[in-house]
Amino acid sequence: MTYCLGILLRDGLVLISDTRTNAGIDNISIYRKMHVLADTPDRLILCMSAGNLSVTQNVLGQLAEGQPPLMADDPPRRIEDMPSMFRAAQLVGEAVMIAGRELKPALAAAGVPSGISLLIGGRIGGGPLALFLVYDAGNFIECGRDTPFLQIGATAYGKPILDRALAYDSPLDEAVKVGLLSFDSTIRSDLSVGLPFDMVVMPADPALPVVRRRLESDDAYFQELSARWSQLLNESRTAVPDPPFLAEAGISPRA
Amino acid sequence: MTYCLGILLRDGLVLISDTRTNAGIDNISIYRKMHVLADTPDRLILCMSAGNLSVTQNVLGQLAEGQPPLMADDPPRRIEDMPSMFRAAQLVGEAVMIAGRELKPALAAAGVPSGISLLIGGRIGGGPLALFLVYDAGNFIECGRDTPFLQIGATAYGKPILDRALAYDSPLDEAVKVGLLSFDSTIRSDLSVGLPFDMVVMPADPALPVVRRRLESDDAYFQELSARWSQLLNESRTAVPDPPFLAEAGISPRA
Repeated sequence: MTYCLGILLRDGLVLISDTRTNAGIDNISIYRKMHVLADTPDRLILCMSAGNLSVTQNVLGQLAEGQPPLMADDPPRRIEDMPSMFRAAQLVGEAVMIAGRELKPALAAAGVPSGISLLIGGRIGGGPLALFLVYDAGNFIECGRDTPFLQIGATAYGKPILDRALAYDSPLDEAVKVGLLSFDSTIRSDLSVGLPFDMVVMPADPALPVVRRRLESDDAYFQELSARWSQLLNESRTAVPDPPFLAEAGISPRA
Repeated sequence: MTYCLGILLRDGLVLISDTRTNAGIDNISIYRKMHVLADTPDRLILCMSAGNLSVTQNVLGQLAEGQPPLMADDPPRRIEDMPSMFRAAQLVGEAVMIAGRELKPALAAAGVPSGISLLIGGRIGGGPLALFLVYDAGNFIECGRDTPFLQIGATAYGKPILDRALAYDSPLDEAVKVGLLSFDSTIRSDLSVGLPFDMVVMPADPALPVVRRRLESDDAYFQELSARWSQLLNESRTAVPDPPFLAEAGISPRA
């Protein structure tokens, strides 16, 4: 499994992915799920992936080579040449459709799950930051302001904290913190998601630097966040009043 | 969808189920998912259900009628007559297998999901409290001390708090509180799970009363728990230190 999270706020874009890949529970590896689709002076576009690794790599390979041109003598169509994030997401969706047509029949015959999903985030030129979720069929949706995040992979364990805490106008460092808390909840409950994490933070202000970081398994901040959060959750749980139901029935709390 | 939770501790057994059923998002009803399989002087056995409602009701119907006897002139085999919780769980599993054989071919042909899962909890005579999870194939597992809870339905949203907070020797009212916090996280993130909740608490000490309660949507304790937990999570999130990554890159927090 996998967990990848994209958060799109007024102040910027936060992308975080785990790195655990497993082919069966006894075959666990570290694979990068944060891929750079384009990194040129006018654009930075990243792709996070969940699902069948061979189908994902087929998609990334197609995008690296460029899609066949629509007119015979044109050059291949590449992410680097797309005029907008929407067109870039369309090109990714096209690659997903082609990979599905090529690979899914044989995978289905072998009983191997072939589904993938991708998060595409970034910016072209002076345009706005954008975040898309590309589904297994190649269709996609864009992240909006009302729910300013998109997830792929093992999404449920870490969703409650995002639902509670994220708003479009949350500060960027708050979003990074909440995102990492979401990962903390996930790795506690799902063995198939694990450190290290890859993180990219793109501030909305193009004058500010992009932060790219791998959080290793001994990352001091994540360890502190995890320990402190655990302690605070314990204290909070204790502070919530006990239910009256047992006392009402004459069952006294254990001495 | 559905969320049902069983917690089995040294001090007792806690069963909580939601009541929301939907056939499509535009057809939402309240159905009891907490069923009494046996309630006689020597036993109380409950069943919580998730999945296809017609398959579930087929299973409950079989159990109410009793399974055909193994020898021609014997009476039907009923939960009321089983000598142990293990045998009761086996009888439930048999009913699940029979329902599957009867109903699944037509449901599969119609493209209707037919899966169910059940939690069976209770006690027979002076025996120990027991909790079982019966899968769709009729096989089952028993709840053990290392992970003192079992879930069915929409299990992931509410699992992190259980993983963090429950131990076999947790007090019974703490378990009720943590169980309700697990439901609180679930209903915030999953529209298909909702109040009212049905709850049964069976203390390990047979001299103590069994608590049976429906928590309606305006239950004062649950409202307080939900509001207080939300407030404490907000305070805790604020108390966790902000990530250093942005400041290190020269990105100052928004004024």
